[in-house]
Amino acid sequence: MPTTEQNAPIDVPRGLKGVIVTDTSIGDVRGLQGFYHYREYSAVELAESRGFEDVWHLMFHGALPDAAERAAFTARTAALRHLPADVADALPAIARASALSGPLAGLRTALSLTGASAGFRPLYDLTPDRRRADALAACAVVPTLLTALHRLAQGLEPVEPRHDLPYAANYLYMLTGEEPEPVRARAVERYLISTVDHGFNASTFTARVIASTGADLAACLVGAIGALSGPLHGGAPSRALDTLDAIGTPDRIDGWLREHIGAGERIMGFGHPVYRTEDPRSRMLKGIAQSFGGDLVDFAVRVEERAEALLAELKPGRELHINVEFFAGVVMELCGLPREMFTPTFAAARVVGWSANILEQAEDSKIIRPSARYVGPPPPVPVPAA
Amino acid sequence: MPTTEQNAPIDVPRGLKGVIVTDTSIGDVRGLQGFYHYREYSAVELAESRGFEDVWHLMFHGALPDAAERAAFTARTAALRHLPADVADALPAIARASALSGPLAGLRTALSLTGASAGFRPLYDLTPDRRRADALAACAVVPTLLTALHRLAQGLEPVEPRHDLPYAANYLYMLTGEEPEPVRARAVERYLISTVDHGFNASTFTARVIASTGADLAACLVGAIGALSGPLHGGAPSRALDTLDAIGTPDRIDGWLREHIGAGERIMGFGHPVYRTEDPRSRMLKGIAQSFGGDLVDFAVRVEERAEALLAELKPGRELHINVEFFAGVVMELCGLPREMFTPTFAAARVVGWSANILEQAEDSKIIRPSARYVGPPPPVPVPAA
Repeated sequence: MPTTEQNAPIDVPRGLKGVIVTDTSIGDVRGLQGFYHYREYSAVELAESRGFEDVWHLMFHGALPDAAERAAFTARTAALRHLPADVADALPAIARASALSGPLAGLRTALSLTGASAGFRPLYDLTPDRRRADALAACAVVPTLLTALHRLAQGLEPVEPRHDLPYAANYLYMLTGEEPEPVRARAVERYLISTVDHGFNASTFTARVIASTGADLAACLVGAIGALSGPLHGGAPSRALDTLDAIGTPDRIDGWLREHIGAGERIMGFGHPVYRTEDPRSRMLKGIAQSFGGDLVDFAVRVEERAEALLAELKPGRELHINVEFFAGVVMELCGLPREMFTPTFAAARVVGWSANILEQAEDSKIIRPSARYVGPPPPVPVPAA
Repeated sequence: MPTTEQNAPIDVPRGLKGVIVTDTSIGDVRGLQGFYHYREYSAVELAESRGFEDVWHLMFHGALPDAAERAAFTARTAALRHLPADVADALPAIARASALSGPLAGLRTALSLTGASAGFRPLYDLTPDRRRADALAACAVVPTLLTALHRLAQGLEPVEPRHDLPYAANYLYMLTGEEPEPVRARAVERYLISTVDHGFNASTFTARVIASTGADLAACLVGAIGALSGPLHGGAPSRALDTLDAIGTPDRIDGWLREHIGAGERIMGFGHPVYRTEDPRSRMLKGIAQSFGGDLVDFAVRVEERAEALLAELKPGRELHINVEFFAGVVMELCGLPREMFTPTFAAARVVGWSANILEQAEDSKIIRPSARYVGPPPPVPVPAA
């Protein structure tokens, strides 16, 4: 077997940009075309025409379900929404301890505990079916954990999941204790579907590196949640809404934008590292927002128009268009989600994409273990006497 | 800014083998020379001549401490060993829920909770000093969490940390409730020092990927713990001891080894992906074991001799020598550590190496985000009606 010293080290761009670390049949992003897909289907088309469970099935099984498969999958995943008693017992303490660090840190802890409680075994030791069973259990419980932690932080009792509601509607139900209006449940469902996966981002890569060691499903997901919580990755759909708040009124749009663009600040909700065109998720979410209508939507549309124009004028050639955060925040606000739950809601969808990636990685027995180049003072220097 | 499609994708070996993903001044492994180092010093020499706190200071500050720095660092880290009340309150529930999944899953949950409770902020938002403060707090509390979870799982009360004992001795004290014999505390301390870091392994890489998103210290460490728990990474020092148990008596050594080597089985405790020579950690640990003496040590030495000879005879050219697991297991057994705590004890040392890597990564503002190649059916296929 070769060693690091026998093989010439391979230099690659910083941050592994453009470096192909694996093959995947889960999906991809075509940034120049403003298009992304899950398996062979347009993600936006799936969000427009299918339910969350259909897409979840597609991600896990590689194919959309037929009617019988849908019924079985929906029933199976709904039954997995309940928390084990020992996890439910620990949630108040987790919510209390996470008050300073927020809901993603709470989810990180609670999902770690749930995986341990469920006795998740190392992926390496499991059959593909058993791995998928663990992944179904982990995904199904995320909305329950998130909403319970949120309610506990508000001094409210958690709401038990309902089996008769689809994933998205049940999420809103557990958050508020009230059955959501169908139009709001469907808007959130479309947002969730559009957020299930999006190329090979840092949290997905984290999940796959951990999976490559053969660790258990919770170990992989907890790492991914950690990566998503990073400011350079997860972003915050609430930030774009904060920008709307900061602008305040329609008459202040141009002045505010000119001032902040002119000062070289990044305008939250605009620009994406991959898309040169409009982000395809934005277009869909804008349509959903406009179907609700109202002052907030009119204002957001006006800010978008002026920001597009002013960014083109003041930052020519940069192709800064609205990204997914901009109208995602508006849609979630319209659907009654509190701002601190915007990124956790993102996580409630992305957990399905992470899991699909973990299941795919687990088919490969090769550990992901790159190298670093030592650039410190040359060893060995004798250790001085203490 | 370029996009994936504009730049030619860069193909690299599977598992990123030999791919240089970063520069580091923390340390390195020279597999052909049987040598590894922390900063500019031989790790084994550090283990032979220094205390754990000295090496921790070296990893965090880049230099060994002088007497005044040692006193201050020791006092500062000892004061950080206590658990916040809300974490201590949650530990019984975590221990109960982790009964099936073991102590690393318990540590993963408990350290996640501790970071949230301590209000760790994203690395991205912190000064280097503040990041280091979070890292000190996280490392200092790991032995407390591990021993408390272990005792709770045994139906025992956790033991409060003592400030007057060094890191290793306090770990053994919290585990057993009794002040350890100095020779045992020192043996464990040398093991811990030798295990702080070891090149760019999968858990260290995981920690750095998460750190590259700007996430908080606990997010990074929890991912690393997850990766360490993978069978392809963390290994299990207890497995080599299980091999000794399976062989049973000196007269069965040759027969057992010939049978299992002949069947193509991997002999636990032998062989390493990087070292072609004897693992330098093994040599040191064997010396420690021999300083204890006794039947187990004599038996282990005899097994090593015969396994080396028989592997050379039956697997010529493979250079299968004992690895760190073999005598690490023997030393930990002699020091009274229960087998289920062998890998957690490894984690109690490695957390310092992970943290040093996280602190180094946090100085780089570039997210680690590679690419994947989509190889599934070409999109877009129209989504069929449900």
